[in-house]
Amino acid sequence: MTESTINALVSPEGSLEILSTFEVNRLKDKSEGGLYRLFRQCALAVLNTGVETDDCKTLMEAHADFDVRLVPQPRGLKLELVNAPAHAFVDGQMLRAIREHLFSVLRDIIYSYSIPQSASGLRRDDPEGITNLIFHILRNARVLQAGRHPDLVVCWGGHSINEREYQYSKEVGHQLGLRGLSICTGCGPGAMKGPMKGATIGHAKQRVKNGRYIGLTEPGIIGAEAPNPIVNELVILPDIEKRLEAFVRTGHGVIVFPGGVGTAEEILYLLGILLHPDNADLPFPVVFTGQPENAEYFEMIDQFIRNSLGDEATKKYEIIIDDPARVARTMKQGMKDVETFRRAMQDAYYFNWMLKIDPVFQMPFEPTHESMRALELHRDQPAHLIAANLRKAFSGIVAGNVKESGIRQVQEHGPFEIAGDPALLTPLGAMLKEFVTQNRMKLPGSSAYEPSYRIVSGAAQATPLK
Amino acid sequence: MTESTINALVSPEGSLEILSTFEVNRLKDKSEGGLYRLFRQCALAVLNTGVETDDCKTLMEAHADFDVRLVPQPRGLKLELVNAPAHAFVDGQMLRAIREHLFSVLRDIIYSYSIPQSASGLRRDDPEGITNLIFHILRNARVLQAGRHPDLVVCWGGHSINEREYQYSKEVGHQLGLRGLSICTGCGPGAMKGPMKGATIGHAKQRVKNGRYIGLTEPGIIGAEAPNPIVNELVILPDIEKRLEAFVRTGHGVIVFPGGVGTAEEILYLLGILLHPDNADLPFPVVFTGQPENAEYFEMIDQFIRNSLGDEATKKYEIIIDDPARVARTMKQGMKDVETFRRAMQDAYYFNWMLKIDPVFQMPFEPTHESMRALELHRDQPAHLIAANLRKAFSGIVAGNVKESGIRQVQEHGPFEIAGDPALLTPLGAMLKEFVTQNRMKLPGSSAYEPSYRIVSGAAQATPLK
Amino acid sequence: MTESTINALVSPEGSLEILSTFEVNRLKDKSEGGLYRLFRQCALAVLNTGVETDDCKTLMEAHADFDVRLVPQPRGLKLELVNAPAHAFVDGQMLRAIREHLFSVLRDIIYSYSIPQSASGLRRDDPEGITNLIFHILRNARVLQAGRHPDLVVCWGGHSINEREYQYSKEVGHQLGLRGLSICTGCGPGAMKGPMKGATIGHAKQRVKNGRYIGLTEPGIIGAEAPNPIVNELVILPDIEKRLEAFVRTGHGVIVFPGGVGTAEEILYLLGILLHPDNADLPFPVVFTGQPENAEYFEMIDQFIRNSLGDEATKKYEIIIDDPARVARTMKQGMKDVETFRRAMQDAYYFNWMLKIDPVFQMPFEPTHESMRALELHRDQPAHLIAANLRKAFSGIVAGNVKESGIRQVQEHGPFEIAGDPALLTPLGAMLKEFVTQNRMKLPGSSAYEPSYRIVSGAAQATPLK
Amino acid sequence: MTESTINALVSPEGSLEILSTFEVNRLKDKSEGGLYRLFRQCALAVLNTGVETDDCKTLMEAHADFDVRLVPQPRGLKLELVNAPAHAFVDGQMLRAIREHLFSVLRDIIYSYSIPQSASGLRRDDPEGITNLIFHILRNARVLQAGRHPDLVVCWGGHSINEREYQYSKEVGHQLGLRGLSICTGCGPGAMKGPMKGATIGHAKQRVKNGRYIGLTEPGIIGAEAPNPIVNELVILPDIEKRLEAFVRTGHGVIVFPGGVGTAEEILYLLGILLHPDNADLPFPVVFTGQPENAEYFEMIDQFIRNSLGDEATKKYEIIIDDPARVARTMKQGMKDVETFRRAMQDAYYFNWMLKIDPVFQMPFEPTHESMRALELHRDQPAHLIAANLRKAFSGIVAGNVKESGIRQVQEHGPFEIAGDPALLTPLGAMLKEFVTQNRMKLPGSSAYEPSYRIVSGAAQATPLK
Repeated sequence: MTESTINALVSPEGSLEILSTFEVNRLKDKSEGGLYRLFRQCALAVLNTGVETDDCKTLMEAHADFDVRLVPQPRGLKLELVNAPAHAFVDGQMLRAIREHLFSVLRDIIYSYSIPQSASGLRRDDPEGITNLIFHILRNARVLQAGRHPDLVVCWGGHSINEREYQYSKEVGHQLGLRGLSICTGCGPGAMKGPMKGATIGHAKQRVKNGRYIGLTEPGIIGAEAPNPIVNELVILPDIEKRLEAFVRTGHGVIVFPGGVGTAEEILYLLGILLHPDNADLPFPVVFTGQPENAEYFEMIDQFIRNSLGDEATKKYEIIIDDPARVARTMKQGMKDVETFRRAMQDAYYFNWMLKIDPVFQMPFEPTHESMRALELHRDQPAHLIAANLRKAFSGIVAGNVKESGIRQVQEHGPFEIAGDPALLTPLGAMLKEFVTQNRMKLPGSSAYEPSYRIVSGAAQATPLK
Repeated sequence: MTESTINALVSPEGSLEILSTFEVNRLKDKSEGGLYRLFRQCALAVLNTGVETDDCKTLMEAHADFDVRLVPQPRGLKLELVNAPAHAFVDGQMLRAIREHLFSVLRDIIYSYSIPQSASGLRRDDPEGITNLIFHILRNARVLQAGRHPDLVVCWGGHSINEREYQYSKEVGHQLGLRGLSICTGCGPGAMKGPMKGATIGHAKQRVKNGRYIGLTEPGIIGAEAPNPIVNELVILPDIEKRLEAFVRTGHGVIVFPGGVGTAEEILYLLGILLHPDNADLPFPVVFTGQPENAEYFEMIDQFIRNSLGDEATKKYEIIIDDPARVARTMKQGMKDVETFRRAMQDAYYFNWMLKIDPVFQMPFEPTHESMRALELHRDQPAHLIAANLRKAFSGIVAGNVKESGIRQVQEHGPFEIAGDPALLTPLGAMLKEFVTQNRMKLPGSSAYEPSYRIVSGAAQATPLK
Repeated sequence: MTESTINALVSPEGSLEILSTFEVNRLKDKSEGGLYRLFRQCALAVLNTGVETDDCKTLMEAHADFDVRLVPQPRGLKLELVNAPAHAFVDGQMLRAIREHLFSVLRDIIYSYSIPQSASGLRRDDPEGITNLIFHILRNARVLQAGRHPDLVVCWGGHSINEREYQYSKEVGHQLGLRGLSICTGCGPGAMKGPMKGATIGHAKQRVKNGRYIGLTEPGIIGAEAPNPIVNELVILPDIEKRLEAFVRTGHGVIVFPGGVGTAEEILYLLGILLHPDNADLPFPVVFTGQPENAEYFEMIDQFIRNSLGDEATKKYEIIIDDPARVARTMKQGMKDVETFRRAMQDAYYFNWMLKIDPVFQMPFEPTHESMRALELHRDQPAHLIAANLRKAFSGIVAGNVKESGIRQVQEHGPFEIAGDPALLTPLGAMLKEFVTQNRMKLPGSSAYEPSYRIVSGAAQATPLK
Repeated sequence: MTESTINALVSPEGSLEILSTFEVNRLKDKSEGGLYRLFRQCALAVLNTGVETDDCKTLMEAHADFDVRLVPQPRGLKLELVNAPAHAFVDGQMLRAIREHLFSVLRDIIYSYSIPQSASGLRRDDPEGITNLIFHILRNARVLQAGRHPDLVVCWGGHSINEREYQYSKEVGHQLGLRGLSICTGCGPGAMKGPMKGATIGHAKQRVKNGRYIGLTEPGIIGAEAPNPIVNELVILPDIEKRLEAFVRTGHGVIVFPGGVGTAEEILYLLGILLHPDNADLPFPVVFTGQPENAEYFEMIDQFIRNSLGDEATKKYEIIIDDPARVARTMKQGMKDVETFRRAMQDAYYFNWMLKIDPVFQMPFEPTHESMRALELHRDQPAHLIAANLRKAFSGIVAGNVKESGIRQVQEHGPFEIAGDPALLTPLGAMLKEFVTQNRMKLPGSSAYEPSYRIVSGAAQATPLK
């Protein structure tokens, strides 16, 4: 990659323009515990908007000479960028959206990594502590808005979808926007971008001035899925589990577009939570949707869920094919149900405190060859725990595909091995194979997909790792 | 047309929510001089957004049972709509953009047709009086904004363009939006809509909150070219000449996309003004642009201008093929030149007082078989007057195509006859023929084009009208 | 007066920053029909804020070298001031309130005197035409706000009150402000300023950001009663009758503080209207209030009303002594009654269309020795017409005290003579005498009061009273 | 005190409307380490606005049945108040200013006492840690505004001043407001309120919409000096030293009005800092001002400073008698010097990072009989340390006058004893005596002043002074 670069001094957009010397020092700290490396890496990812790459490591290597420095100013703070990718600029001026994203990164890294982590009472290994930490991060990012009615639709789906799927996701966004609903996604291109772009036009037609296009990401994924410039609220959560919890606690409903293994991970996470007995009566609208040619894809998913989690699980979502207006109306109605329920329960509109999340979904899952091999993939457990373990399996596969540490492990030791009850693993293997066939495992432009996993029939017999 | 309709009571959006009894009575007045009929007709046109029809008469006939009534309210004014077209609504709620347009129509009809027309000093048959009237109408509509730097790009082009041309116009709008420029068009679909949609996304990325999507229209054309819902400032000028003058006095530059005879009329109007000796040094950026396949089209236009108006005329514009970013940069630079010039001259940024417009461009041209036949189409006159007469010829053809009175005349007496110097008329005829071939004369969906004009070789020999 | 002056170029505050060449020319026109002289006079008055003078003529003479010129600018319009009174400036910068007032004067003079006056349908000698004209002027000044609930309290009373009376009026304003009510007065010092100042503090405590301090004035009075700088909406009505009508059509209730003959005029105007049979059921809260030492004053007024207009008239108001909170609560309750009534009647909150005003109250009364002598001051007419004629008598006396033309007439021909039924005139004479004794006829600082009137017992005999 | 009380459910004003369960639990915690008691006490103080009492203990006892509870709501959070003082309400509605103050108290108690105190790196016993903590608290309260130019004038002076002194402080505020400057005080009545009230009127005249009336207080003093309702930014700092540091780091200049021993403490604190060698070149405008009758008072102070701290110290301030406009102009010029300096140094406008504060001024001084007796009151030390020790002496006297723990100690063990070099103590004693004579030691309404201190000539002998 020999692209041109630009040096620039940029002023903040948004709010966090003032830092204490304590914070500035932590950000400048290039030592192991310091925040400089993390900030530089996320800043580079944000500047790389629109360039599609799967691979965080590649990104860092391609921009080894990139640097970012804090420059204190009488009226606030500026960032000096050295060798920044030129495509973040229009006629030499940094795109304002990207400036906002840069300062969002700064804000969240400082907040998450310095102040509250060691505060007494907010312990990171405690379920309540984790939920409170997520609340504090989101509040600090001003994502939690007290005066608003439920209106936030989380959109999940592949970043690597085809043009027709993309247009469909845009039209769904348009219909959501026409109904005044806002969008929350995981950043990146494809189904993460289409609904936002469509909603922008819908909001313009309805003169919605405060439309929200929220992107929730985390340091490990931001390099591969940079926020698109429509995102007007960007939050960097500390890790993937907190990011997922942030989705379900702030969003009021979820739409799933066709995707790959990442999308499957999200679906299993969501069902695993909604199937928890404590959440049985909690309204939470979920729609799977796509064009006519995606009908088959969703049937496959539906069948996999039915097989692995049971019929009850399939009642948690509705599949709507080729009808964006109906998707939007279903979500709009779902928002009203959520509002009615929360008002009755005196629970906040802006944060789903009542949603019970089993600790297994909160604890970071560190995929290694060992932990992947050890997953309990059998049916002799409650549905929500089956979902939890399947989710971890998908999580490991995603890591092996796109995350720096995952890629390295797979490069060094070969694919992760997944073992367990064939009744679960056989359909799983089939579905993964289908994803590969449909090119849902990698971003377009990459070479042929090299699987990051290997399914091993039975848990007991599983051959040890070399 | 058997489409469904809705009855609704709508509250104002925007500003004119309060009327005097004097104004309410004029609007309710169904007599000849009253404003009721005009208001009803324009209101219906606005509600018909997105439905493509060429023909104002058809629209009125299709909605013979449509009615609109003023309903005074303690906190302002509402409009009661009876049998309004259902597609102006989303889930039973009128699209907010359309609500705004309805009240813009109300505002402009009241303002233009009641208060100032008979005020002493503002005479409608006096060039200065006309310019002042346009100023007052635009100021009343809050289009003239004192604090703004020059940033308004007028986009002209066909409403009846193909998908690829449409995508191109959108990308040009996107690039303009990324540079903070705003869009002004004549309302309607096609090249009138694409740049606005693109600019909306560009503005979103640059967090431009006060992006302008101005639509200038007039009662005779609004039925055929309803404002698209992106339009956030709609103004109804009294007639086509005042609308054209409004374009060149408020816009700071013009981009012309491929179009048909209406676009040609606009080009000739613009050149006729810019060629006036008094305007020789006035900066006014003009770009003709399109995709590679439009290159030929613009060569034809360029050749026609060179032939009929001379080489000097071709220096007034630049042709840029297939390079939206360059189009936007050219406009951005042009805006700066305009700003420098106006500051030096102490002329307003928001209204081009210095632009000299020959009265021939201000006086309404009423196309009849007689007036069309009488046009002085020869080269024995200054270039700007040649342009003026050619402009009238195109205006008559447009009227014969899409305006109620024009269509009726052509239906009754056959096509308008155009006569004059063959050196002018032969290339004119060729160009018009080409427009027909390229389907640039009618909206898609209409049946085969029935020409509204007939070229008659020499002025002297011209056979009299039957 | 040898005060220092300043030359300055000031930018507009507020809205009317852009004028057409048509308007600029009218403002520059120094001929008889042109607006220059009127504008210069009102501009000077506005700049003279805080300097207490009774006398418009004195003001103009003291500043014979003052000039004001329009300076067109690329981004709007500026005003060049030559020899402006220095006290309108703080450290060389014009007080922003005064800048706003200057541009309000400009806005209203242009609007009232150029555009609509000759528009067909809005005839100035027709009752409905007058009311509509007032509506249009107020709307153009943005005083009519569609979204607001009734909250506007008109405060009347002397500009020449003592410190304790002033403090009391301030406390009433404070209590009104604490209840979110806004203030409308006739500009000037004393009871016109106190309630606004108090309300400013009350609004600050309640964080009312959109508190209104409306000043309604007219060219003949503005020189003597310049708007105080708290006034944030200033309107120049064409004459005193339209100003009075503006008070009762926009205000939702009236508080009367102790005053002099001008206040008496306002009371009679108000009662004359409220006593009209058509207004019998219209809620319109009126409170007369003052400190303990003002109790006697209000008893005198109350007695005069009972004598001249009958007991019914005294039911139209409530007298509250020394209880600002109760005054405010009474007004707050009154606002609610007004709101309920208007909602039931579908009448606007922002303009009292239903209030019947007899044409006799709308037609300008030009006080001359002849017209004053001709007033029908007897009881053989309906109460509201007695009030009308008494109002005119007071109006003439005010003119003789403070208005340029009145002062000149009295200087030339001696005091105005007032004749009529002694049953009306004797208490009138007594009351006027009391006003003189209490120093309520002139601003403080003037020399001894020289009466501008003389009461003559019977109309026929015209002999002096004593 | 048998005043009436009201129960109410109040919604938040301002920003902190949303709390985590973690925070809610800490606030509900009535145990020793919990925040409930502190919150209840500060809430009561805030509700007690306008009631003048010296004594926090009296306040708590008088409202033993007062309670405050958090009530979570779907759209945020409400507070339920039981037996709240009725004078915080207008017609049954809580004054909006007080609602804001309540939620400011909530915000600061939560922020200061839960999250950051135990965060690693922000240690409370470390000078830099303290300064950073103050920065974080102020930033969280949104007091630090990046975009603003230096404009914040700290006003110090007695809360127990006479009417003429109060009017003077108001006029100074008026002149500051006319120049667009904002006010910061320590809350409470008298010289803390006058400048804010005056500035409110000045800001209204200049249409300053974002005028700031900042009140900085701390839990120990808020009971005696409740914020007046003009205060629109209230911050509760953890203790008196942090409050003083907040004044000098956020304010851009200081005006001192006549006051008592608290004011003297503030003067010595300020001079102690400004006399630090590191601050020699730092611009920091300080003005002592009052009416003609206060001239003597300031001469006394001036003389005391000259005697105890040396001539150099007297160059740090200017004494201006009876000239509010000059005071304001001096401050305005001072703000410009501060701006120039900070821009040159690249130091923030909103926080005076460069100001060196000796740790002795940061560490809490806990006045006890022992610590008061141990103060090093002699001249054999640098001027800024003499100031530091004198400051502590005054601090102890204030505590004995108005703070709960100080009052109790004095009640139990008699007045604090102050010992040291007579060269310092004799003028000190004289000045304190003068304060007593001038009634500057207690709020009006209290009984005769009972001294909380006793001066003992030499440290060793501890014999009484007389």
